[in-house]
Amino acid sequence: MELDFVAWLRERLPRSEHVALGVGDDAAVVDLSSPTLVTTADLLIDGVHFRTEEHPPERIGRKALAVNLSDLAAMAAKPVGALVSLALPRDAAGGMAADDLARRLVEGMLPLAEEFACPIVGGDTNVGSGPLTIAVTAFGEPTDRGVVRRDGAVAGDYLMMTGEELGGSLVGKHLDFTPRVAEALDLAQRFDLHAMMDLSDGLAADLPRMCTASGVGATVFAYHLPISEAVKAAAARTGREAIEHALSDGEDFELLMAVDKETAREMLQWPPESGVFWIGEFNEAAGVRLRLHDGETRPLSNTGYEHR
Amino acid sequence: MELDFVAWLRERLPRSEHVALGVGDDAAVVDLSSPTLVTTADLLIDGVHFRTEEHPPERIGRKALAVNLSDLAAMAAKPVGALVSLALPRDAAGGMAADDLARRLVEGMLPLAEEFACPIVGGDTNVGSGPLTIAVTAFGEPTDRGVVRRDGAVAGDYLMMTGEELGGSLVGKHLDFTPRVAEALDLAQRFDLHAMMDLSDGLAADLPRMCTASGVGATVFAYHLPISEAVKAAAARTGREAIEHALSDGEDFELLMAVDKETAREMLQWPPESGVFWIGEFNEAAGVRLRLHDGETRPLSNTGYEHR
Repeated sequence: MELDFVAWLRERLPRSEHVALGVGDDAAVVDLSSPTLVTTADLLIDGVHFRTEEHPPERIGRKALAVNLSDLAAMAAKPVGALVSLALPRDAAGGMAADDLARRLVEGMLPLAEEFACPIVGGDTNVGSGPLTIAVTAFGEPTDRGVVRRDGAVAGDYLMMTGEELGGSLVGKHLDFTPRVAEALDLAQRFDLHAMMDLSDGLAADLPRMCTASGVGATVFAYHLPISEAVKAAAARTGREAIEHALSDGEDFELLMAVDKETAREMLQWPPESGVFWIGEFNEAAGVRLRLHDGETRPLSNTGYEHR
Repeated sequence: MELDFVAWLRERLPRSEHVALGVGDDAAVVDLSSPTLVTTADLLIDGVHFRTEEHPPERIGRKALAVNLSDLAAMAAKPVGALVSLALPRDAAGGMAADDLARRLVEGMLPLAEEFACPIVGGDTNVGSGPLTIAVTAFGEPTDRGVVRRDGAVAGDYLMMTGEELGGSLVGKHLDFTPRVAEALDLAQRFDLHAMMDLSDGLAADLPRMCTASGVGATVFAYHLPISEAVKAAAARTGREAIEHALSDGEDFELLMAVDKETAREMLQWPPESGVFWIGEFNEAAGVRLRLHDGETRPLSNTGYEHR
């Protein structure tokens, strides 16, 4: 199986000027612009992050690359390339041959790889008894502004996020989201970002991580959170509050940022393409709080979705 | 689970001067010596590449990193760092908790990471319903001699390999082998290597790959192959010829090289620490042949072990 797939891959992958040596040797050789490498890995498992019985392989493959691009975006790093490793099930959903499944996964990645100039440069493929497992590693490089870490928020900073809505990932967004690479590079170029991370497990899980890393607390303004009609409708069905979905559905893949007040104002005036929201502030007091419409403040319990 | 493990990892991983930002942010930042990145990924699955029921997690973790180091060695690249992604079974062998399993896998990698200056800089961990799956990506950088590819063998070149024996991996060597990083760097520094690759699937499977990539054929001298007493004894038990084991057991993780005649002579006189053998020659005629003790030549059928 593997040899056919590698031969197919060598034909199928577009040439890239930064890839000095691609698929087919013991390792790939990639030319960066500088000696600083930014790199991240995400591993996705059938039944946890996607369902091969429901979702076509192309959408699954796309997601596996997109979550890695979102991590590069979160550092304000420019994508350079990716390695894709696949553990293919002996008997895939619908009786698909491992080879066909592998090709369709890659086909789903290619448009995204091209859009974000992140060519697939290598990887590994094996067949086992388990569920489809996709391990992608993405490489990037900092711009001349350097990377943006998650530990730079200071008390008094404004809490900003990209995007039009929070929550509702389970109705399909988690497969088709646009990683905020362009927005991150644009924002980092134009503004002084104190801290940035991507929202992968939901605001209620991720914001405490930024706060802990930065040694600050935060207050989220419930009435500033972008909650779409779709999320409200979904909440009506589940019987939970819409804000609960917004805080804890997870897989929003928007950017969370800490900036000073003046920068926040400018950012709201000249927002990135995705839109941007001011959703809270960082405080000296530890912990993460939610301020409600009536001014009441309650602890933001960590109800983010954790893949188990 | 994941948060505890990440906290443990941040404490446990030694600091490294090349790692500007390690585990804990959205991505890691690694300082290379030059803008050229050499990178490789290998994915190992329980039941295919190791058996959690038989092998302790530390040896399994070690192997997962070692196979990647072997790929860097095959390019004559110097290791710089690695990302480790784990798909952990909900119920590991012996009822081990996913968290414990993850820690023991990493503990098995750390001595090797230190020995070869290849710190773990990040990764991802998830729990699923399938078997333990380990996806490692290793980064390296070329020396000032550049990388050595597998496609540079020319007709008339001598076929050389490192190491003391071929075959017998299944009796345990495949878990405890030493990746030939030091030997590769030493050899590439001292000699003009036309082509190099590592032996992962057995000489009978790997040599044809080097030949195809280089557009040449090869003849292997059966009587020059290093076959240990252990392999001969194993062959007596399986009822197969010892040379069959030597050619197709796989997972030797020795280096295969193409060099000109003069270089071969020098290499045999000043061998690397692992030892070195002259085991054949490259020819213009396509195909890979085995020359027997009596001078008879037969096709070397591709009987290498492929993980399926």
